[in-house]
Amino acid sequence: MAKVHAEAQKEQILNAAARLFIEKGFGGASMQEIAEALGMTRTAVYYYFKNKDEILTALVEEVTLRARRLSSRATSEANTDPKEWLRTLVHQHTMLILSHHNEFRVVDRTEQQLPERAYRANEEAKRAVLSNFTAAIEAGVKVGVFRVVDAKVTAFTMIGMCSWPAFWYKPDGPKSAEEIADTIAELAVQSVIRPARRQLKSAGDVSEALALLREDLDHLSLMIEKQPKSG
Amino acid sequence: MAKVHAEAQKEQILNAAARLFIEKGFGGASMQEIAEALGMTRTAVYYYFKNKDEILTALVEEVTLRARRLSSRATSEANTDPKEWLRTLVHQHTMLILSHHNEFRVVDRTEQQLPERAYRANEEAKRAVLSNFTAAIEAGVKVGVFRVVDAKVTAFTMIGMCSWPAFWYKPDGPKSAEEIADTIAELAVQSVIRPARRQLKSAGDVSEALALLREDLDHLSLMIEKQPKSG
Repeated sequence: MAKVHAEAQKEQILNAAARLFIEKGFGGASMQEIAEALGMTRTAVYYYFKNKDEILTALVEEVTLRARRLSSRATSEANTDPKEWLRTLVHQHTMLILSHHNEFRVVDRTEQQLPERAYRANEEAKRAVLSNFTAAIEAGVKVGVFRVVDAKVTAFTMIGMCSWPAFWYKPDGPKSAEEIADTIAELAVQSVIRPARRQLKSAGDVSEALALLREDLDHLSLMIEKQPKSG
Repeated sequence: MAKVHAEAQKEQILNAAARLFIEKGFGGASMQEIAEALGMTRTAVYYYFKNKDEILTALVEEVTLRARRLSSRATSEANTDPKEWLRTLVHQHTMLILSHHNEFRVVDRTEQQLPERAYRANEEAKRAVLSNFTAAIEAGVKVGVFRVVDAKVTAFTMIGMCSWPAFWYKPDGPKSAEEIADTIAELAVQSVIRPARRQLKSAGDVSEALALLREDLDHLSLMIEKQPKSG
């Protein structure tokens, strides 16, 4: 119980600190103001974080290192379907950003001020996330489920799709976090997928091919009906 | 000639200022340092910009207001093809970010410190860009060229795709700006496009339908050849 309470307190402090750093800049907000924003004493805040650097380091842990763990788990659990692997990566990364949008922006804005160790951990974590996204895209291209794309530029772009909500998301907006993440995951998957009908199935399904032919015939009939009569 | 020289000087100052603001924060970099970075006298810098606020305002002009003008022009010039309209929006916005990646990050980071008028101009310009992206997506959905998507979440996501290079692009990387913008524009278009073969063409093209049928037949032959012999 005590541990849960402490975790909740820390989370509250980080959240308030992130909001203040966004408003006033990292240099502009003091430990005193963070405490005041929460109706806590300054001593209570110092109990959890020795100084603002420790708060920054904890924010990196909350956002970038968690993103790394999530993407690495999805990658190690990935089955043989690159489409679902990619969908999971995008969906969970977007959900993380949506639930930590202020924290994410603070980490981005204060990268240059991060204590050396936190800075390095942050850089490494970002590289790991990029490499997990790249691996999923490369796997999909390799088996012909995805178009032939530059995997690295594409991976960066998808991380951008996941991260951008940090710059516009409002928790009281008309769409739920889950709906937004679903939409973004689908956009990401569709952006690389090859049209289903051009995909070569490893196990050819004749009845499916016949169904496609039938669909084309329907399409053709429709077109012929539309042609101006020739006589 | 003199005007061109002055414009080039201003551009250089903005560029150096943006790099310093990224490194040291807006509060941490002085006019003196900006001058030193360029090997100019402080007086020369003051000739172009009265203070750092004026530099910030000029950076907003360079990035957000220019993005607004570009997207509005593409929208007013858009022909009836929402796919090409969207492609143009994404491509030119990405190119703008690639050529102004530091400037863009400074504007993002210092939004709260912008002088009131620049702040409002920046917000209005962002809204206009969003509304131009949204209009292109809605147009494509309406004529059935794009999937049915939430136009606003999709527009935000595409602006994210265009903007993310600001966070990773290095001008000396292996890909040219043009190649990156091409890749991102294609990802954006593909993310919403309906598979071509499901689109109902307003003017039915029989020869195209026959070509599709032929492709399906080839596909079917391939499958049949792959089936285990039955006797």
